[in-house]
Amino acid sequence: MNPNIETFIGCDAPYDEAEIVLFGAPYDSTTSFRPGTRFGCKAIRSESFGLETYSPYQDRDLTDISVFDAGDLELVFGNSPRALDQIQEMTAQILEDGKIPCMVGGEHLVTLGAFRAVQKKYPDVHIIHFDAHADLREDYLGERLSHASVLRRCWELVGDGRIYQFGIRSGDREEFNWGKNHVFTNKFDFRWLDDIIVGLGDKPVYFTLDLDVLDPSVFPGTGTPEAGGVTFLQLLEAVRKLENLHIVGFDVNELSPMYDQSGVSTAVAGKIIRELLLLFAKKRRDS
Amino acid sequence: MNPNIETFIGCDAPYDEAEIVLFGAPYDSTTSFRPGTRFGCKAIRSESFGLETYSPYQDRDLTDISVFDAGDLELVFGNSPRALDQIQEMTAQILEDGKIPCMVGGEHLVTLGAFRAVQKKYPDVHIIHFDAHADLREDYLGERLSHASVLRRCWELVGDGRIYQFGIRSGDREEFNWGKNHVFTNKFDFRWLDDIIVGLGDKPVYFTLDLDVLDPSVFPGTGTPEAGGVTFLQLLEAVRKLENLHIVGFDVNELSPMYDQSGVSTAVAGKIIRELLLLFAKKRRDS
Amino acid sequence: MNPNIETFIGCDAPYDEAEIVLFGAPYDSTTSFRPGTRFGCKAIRSESFGLETYSPYQDRDLTDISVFDAGDLELVFGNSPRALDQIQEMTAQILEDGKIPCMVGGEHLVTLGAFRAVQKKYPDVHIIHFDAHADLREDYLGERLSHASVLRRCWELVGDGRIYQFGIRSGDREEFNWGKNHVFTNKFDFRWLDDIIVGLGDKPVYFTLDLDVLDPSVFPGTGTPEAGGVTFLQLLEAVRKLENLHIVGFDVNELSPMYDQSGVSTAVAGKIIRELLLLFAKKRRDS
Amino acid sequence: MNPNIETFIGCDAPYDEAEIVLFGAPYDSTTSFRPGTRFGCKAIRSESFGLETYSPYQDRDLTDISVFDAGDLELVFGNSPRALDQIQEMTAQILEDGKIPCMVGGEHLVTLGAFRAVQKKYPDVHIIHFDAHADLREDYLGERLSHASVLRRCWELVGDGRIYQFGIRSGDREEFNWGKNHVFTNKFDFRWLDDIIVGLGDKPVYFTLDLDVLDPSVFPGTGTPEAGGVTFLQLLEAVRKLENLHIVGFDVNELSPMYDQSGVSTAVAGKIIRELLLLFAKKRRDS
Amino acid sequence: MNPNIETFIGCDAPYDEAEIVLFGAPYDSTTSFRPGTRFGCKAIRSESFGLETYSPYQDRDLTDISVFDAGDLELVFGNSPRALDQIQEMTAQILEDGKIPCMVGGEHLVTLGAFRAVQKKYPDVHIIHFDAHADLREDYLGERLSHASVLRRCWELVGDGRIYQFGIRSGDREEFNWGKNHVFTNKFDFRWLDDIIVGLGDKPVYFTLDLDVLDPSVFPGTGTPEAGGVTFLQLLEAVRKLENLHIVGFDVNELSPMYDQSGVSTAVAGKIIRELLLLFAKKRRDS
Amino acid sequence: MNPNIETFIGCDAPYDEAEIVLFGAPYDSTTSFRPGTRFGCKAIRSESFGLETYSPYQDRDLTDISVFDAGDLELVFGNSPRALDQIQEMTAQILEDGKIPCMVGGEHLVTLGAFRAVQKKYPDVHIIHFDAHADLREDYLGERLSHASVLRRCWELVGDGRIYQFGIRSGDREEFNWGKNHVFTNKFDFRWLDDIIVGLGDKPVYFTLDLDVLDPSVFPGTGTPEAGGVTFLQLLEAVRKLENLHIVGFDVNELSPMYDQSGVSTAVAGKIIRELLLLFAKKRRDS
Repeated sequence: MNPNIETFIGCDAPYDEAEIVLFGAPYDSTTSFRPGTRFGCKAIRSESFGLETYSPYQDRDLTDISVFDAGDLELVFGNSPRALDQIQEMTAQILEDGKIPCMVGGEHLVTLGAFRAVQKKYPDVHIIHFDAHADLREDYLGERLSHASVLRRCWELVGDGRIYQFGIRSGDREEFNWGKNHVFTNKFDFRWLDDIIVGLGDKPVYFTLDLDVLDPSVFPGTGTPEAGGVTFLQLLEAVRKLENLHIVGFDVNELSPMYDQSGVSTAVAGKIIRELLLLFAKKRRDS
Repeated sequence: MNPNIETFIGCDAPYDEAEIVLFGAPYDSTTSFRPGTRFGCKAIRSESFGLETYSPYQDRDLTDISVFDAGDLELVFGNSPRALDQIQEMTAQILEDGKIPCMVGGEHLVTLGAFRAVQKKYPDVHIIHFDAHADLREDYLGERLSHASVLRRCWELVGDGRIYQFGIRSGDREEFNWGKNHVFTNKFDFRWLDDIIVGLGDKPVYFTLDLDVLDPSVFPGTGTPEAGGVTFLQLLEAVRKLENLHIVGFDVNELSPMYDQSGVSTAVAGKIIRELLLLFAKKRRDS
Repeated sequence: MNPNIETFIGCDAPYDEAEIVLFGAPYDSTTSFRPGTRFGCKAIRSESFGLETYSPYQDRDLTDISVFDAGDLELVFGNSPRALDQIQEMTAQILEDGKIPCMVGGEHLVTLGAFRAVQKKYPDVHIIHFDAHADLREDYLGERLSHASVLRRCWELVGDGRIYQFGIRSGDREEFNWGKNHVFTNKFDFRWLDDIIVGLGDKPVYFTLDLDVLDPSVFPGTGTPEAGGVTFLQLLEAVRKLENLHIVGFDVNELSPMYDQSGVSTAVAGKIIRELLLLFAKKRRDS
Repeated sequence: MNPNIETFIGCDAPYDEAEIVLFGAPYDSTTSFRPGTRFGCKAIRSESFGLETYSPYQDRDLTDISVFDAGDLELVFGNSPRALDQIQEMTAQILEDGKIPCMVGGEHLVTLGAFRAVQKKYPDVHIIHFDAHADLREDYLGERLSHASVLRRCWELVGDGRIYQFGIRSGDREEFNWGKNHVFTNKFDFRWLDDIIVGLGDKPVYFTLDLDVLDPSVFPGTGTPEAGGVTFLQLLEAVRKLENLHIVGFDVNELSPMYDQSGVSTAVAGKIIRELLLLFAKKRRDS
Repeated sequence: MNPNIETFIGCDAPYDEAEIVLFGAPYDSTTSFRPGTRFGCKAIRSESFGLETYSPYQDRDLTDISVFDAGDLELVFGNSPRALDQIQEMTAQILEDGKIPCMVGGEHLVTLGAFRAVQKKYPDVHIIHFDAHADLREDYLGERLSHASVLRRCWELVGDGRIYQFGIRSGDREEFNWGKNHVFTNKFDFRWLDDIIVGLGDKPVYFTLDLDVLDPSVFPGTGTPEAGGVTFLQLLEAVRKLENLHIVGFDVNELSPMYDQSGVSTAVAGKIIRELLLLFAKKRRDS
Repeated sequence: MNPNIETFIGCDAPYDEAEIVLFGAPYDSTTSFRPGTRFGCKAIRSESFGLETYSPYQDRDLTDISVFDAGDLELVFGNSPRALDQIQEMTAQILEDGKIPCMVGGEHLVTLGAFRAVQKKYPDVHIIHFDAHADLREDYLGERLSHASVLRRCWELVGDGRIYQFGIRSGDREEFNWGKNHVFTNKFDFRWLDDIIVGLGDKPVYFTLDLDVLDPSVFPGTGTPEAGGVTFLQLLEAVRKLENLHIVGFDVNELSPMYDQSGVSTAVAGKIIRELLLLFAKKRRDS
């Protein structure tokens, strides 16, 4: 009789054979408005069984690729430096084993832990960032390790001209002003994404997706809903454009299941993760 | 003093005078993910009083047509063959009396009961099917009477080339592959609907609407929300195209009120039913 | 140590310096379907702290303008004449002090109280009305002071040709028929808004926004959700067109937080109010 | 084929044969805190099918007695005098036909309408009142027709010494002080109920039950939850003591289904109504 | 890197070493009122991490005993005979391996599958049954495999005088009448439990716990809440009395998480399971 | 026109005149299970207007005493040392001004900040602690500043024999074992409270109330519901016994409004705070 192994649907490859390793980073202690994203990764895994493994968009199936689901890290709430260290360590091991990390948050701050490891291995890495919020503050009420500062912290690692933001529709005036000189910010939608992709060529790219880039009508289950976002089909089209980039790691963040009574946000998160896995895994079994 | 008669808004014609007979089929025992559509028909009836009888889209009013609301069938949960028999019997009686059945589910399996009666009376009937899911599996975990197989069971009655699906965006690979040779499947949206309608001419048509063809942002209250669906206005436009077909029966399924805390899904279901009744009833009183 | 002053975000100017005065009108006693808008104004104020003061749409910041938040009126439930008198008195005082009233409902009936004061000061005022419902009934079940009659009552004050409705998609046949001879009604969307604005020139205009003009996917938290509404971006574009009108007062109504489990409706209401304040306040500090 | 008649479970006697007539009074316009009791009567009727007709407490069955369910009155929101008139008229007709009225609210103000009719027929009627709140204010914010004043208004009809309150645990100081000289108030529980019952003998008695006499743990679904109430078994024991009184009418109020996500409050309300019907109907068929 | 094994808290013994084997039976297709218990077992496992492994009531710890959690069976909805067969097979294997089965439902019908296996191994087994409902119907709307008939089906296996029911407070008259001659039914509470236990001595006993024996105030998250139940402390005291019986299998049923917005029902279910495991596991490691 | 001052009901004294100062400590970053208590203080203040200022239990009224409500502190999430410093500073100022601090959390960790200030002023202070959880761990996953360690941290300030716990029914074995030698722990209920009170005489006492000492049926809205708690009336009786102690500060914690859909938990929290204020304020105006 077997123990009860739970994975994201279709992600049951043995670790050694896996091309992508999915893991959860259940942390939300710096969330400044409505907490609860700590339950995001677990909810997505659990509800993924309402999906199919097959994507009619890509005509590909999760059964053709190899993904290992390592479950959720056990992170300590209220201590961001330690949580980020744990995430970095996990990511580093995955990278060391030649695999692609796929982290599911959690609040957006968790990106910093994963990105530190990625940037160590790929010092010339660029970031593509889809989000409603700029996340470029120097600090939030004096705290530098904050979801509202996470891209600023990443910028400190990579410097100017390496971060490309899309969908941004919220921030304070200072963030937007600072950003003009340091990152590429495309407000509201995905215009210019094609050009950016051409420019990136085969450089290593980290993709970080804050799901609140979606309009709250599509994705109500998040801590800080911000009207005016993109539709699911717009997001799907945008992520499909990333297919031929050299993606070395990616994450999906900010689902807060408590605000998702109907479950539609959890379902959309799971569907996007399925599509990302199918896009970024290059080795496919014949089916 | 009168007893408490409850009907869908404006559907209070006597049975004998009615052109359309609406009834509920509260069954959801084969639902594989999140149950609760058994309460769909009752919720729609109850909440329909938040609507008006008048449609500004069609400039028609339910007070101009004759619809009888028979309430909900009393179906036994956990025994699909018996439930389908009860539905078939009810539908057969309505057809025998020269009226158009309008069934409100319940899960999509209930369509099979109604369609059996329709197909007996109209052996050359065609099906127009709006849905997120193909519902074409041979069986689901060995069970042939399943919401996931309902169109496959209907196909067994009518054969190849008689089923036209629109909006489909979920299924396993085998369903899609099988479907290519047996039914017309238009993925994602309503393209080709005009052509299909032209081809159908005045043949008898059964229309089955799984409300999850709508995007979950519009219709969160369903068991298996599937992102990437159509908007309300797209659906409204599509159903209005059906107006001149020879509709011999129709159903509307898969509202699960438990996942509809705000009530918007129930409201949209009621509004679509109002529009369908106004479209498919041909005899109109002068107003 | 200071007492606990709560305002809509960024609306902390002293009364004397304020150009706009925001206040809540928590009344919903005539709501015929699902009550609860009484909590709308309070919820918007409270949740506004999930927003930023800065609008990337207008590149303006609430810190540059002067708005005073007077909190909510204490209205008596179940007595509409008295509640309307209280609202009228408050509005009259704001107008007398040379300021622009911004009322947050509550059900739509509250508009009548505010508009009475506005119309006394500006007898030639016109009304721009965004709504899903025509609100033009002579009475509702015999009651003339009803949310369903509020624009009819306003029409009695201003007469024919002074009311311009947009987005209307629900009403009974009589309302629509009556309206054809007395008000301008643009069904479903904002077509013709540009022309109306040109025609209004610098005449005084009162703007009343029933938030259910938005599609229920965007704004589920309302008493009578009506599918087929406009998107947030459509509404945003429409209100931005009002910028150069001579707005002498405005209101925002019909949020019912009880039906907004996820909080997205409250957030969208707050964001629209922020945009309206930034549009209608003309005096700006250098920033 | 029959139309869809909906009744409280087991209350399907023809009007002429009925000993008790149940009807709903969906009114809540004076509710000062959280509205929604308008939906109480409808929810209880609908959910009563989760109950059995048989009471193991009394070893009696609703199938043995004759109750007619007249459905809900259509009351106008926002106009208390008219709503009370409609309720009074309905109650008077039931009384005139020699039957016992059982009204289901709605807010507690509806009691006034029913009681006016009862008091006209039985000028010497007494009131037994179970509630968390004293409801004895002269007015509420100046409004005399208010849920918070309803027993005061009843007192104006019957005078001192005719009202017996139990379970009261909330009110302002003035209410309690006034009450000391005019009504019998037993705070917190049912002590002295036996003595009161003995004293009443065979005098006509109206029983009004505000369900918030129950502790909020048992009955969370109400507008103003007040901790420290009685348990279900305490309430059941108390109402059973009323069996041999000469009950000439009764009502059950203040369920607000919006605050009853789990449905337990609706279920408890239905169960209490079943027990009351079985207690107060004297004519029983042999079973 | 390890795969993601999920167990009820503290139930991580290897199968071979385990004294008790816990498994979920996610089936609810015959539920006649509100479905959703299929998610009960999964929710309890997931939320058990809000508990401690240590019981201050018993001064015992789950780390001292050996329990294996096999996860949930994959049952087909809508086909009760097959689902019961799968459950029976699983239970038979656990019994064959000399272990005690602890099944977590699901609706109460699942007990029949487990009990069939238990009764095969222990033909003289008795049943202790805690429940709000008698579950003794011959059939429900003609269906013999129903949650409302499950104890009647068990009776068919064991005959008169082997079933002891406690806490029963709902059923139809016929059930209660039939029961008088065939089973021992203690209505409302646990009186006589001590005597029954003495009488049972060391005979093999199967314990089936329908959690709705608890009052809905304690356990709102169930399909058919029935007021007047026992408190948590009463239930805890009652189950502790079972400690010295010869328990050969047990189950815990009828949590429906959809009706448990606050999570308190899921938490109480998990706590009771922890206590039962600590009571019924006899082999304890030194700690 | 006045700005919008919001206070707990009846707590509108000027700071200088106030005997008690109430403030909110919205922090929950170390919550290990379900976060959200950050919204507790705000919700209690807002919903307190469903209460009366008058207590029929004590026959006292908030209008007779002087309480100042300072609103909520602005604390940084994710940085416990800083948050505790802010709380300590606030508390110290209140104490310095000769007033009694009444802090409303937030998670239980906030007690440490307030207690540090109290202990500085009253080095011989004792603690009375009502809670479901012992909160005596040395650390939680390595973190010493945790809600699960807060009483251990307090113990480090006061030493053995100064802490008296009541109602405790959850903890790990080590906590209970450690506690036996260092604090007085009364499991499950309030037995021995009278004796402890006698022993304390007029020593300074800090009272910390974790509301989850209440049974989850009474208080579902908390992060870690733990069955088997006390009733509201038991808690009320217990706090009334504290009336004659020398209370130098107190706090009320762990309401999580997200898990309180019905609002009953928020209402019970507000009612307990009202009773505590009336008990601990000694200077009363004549009324």
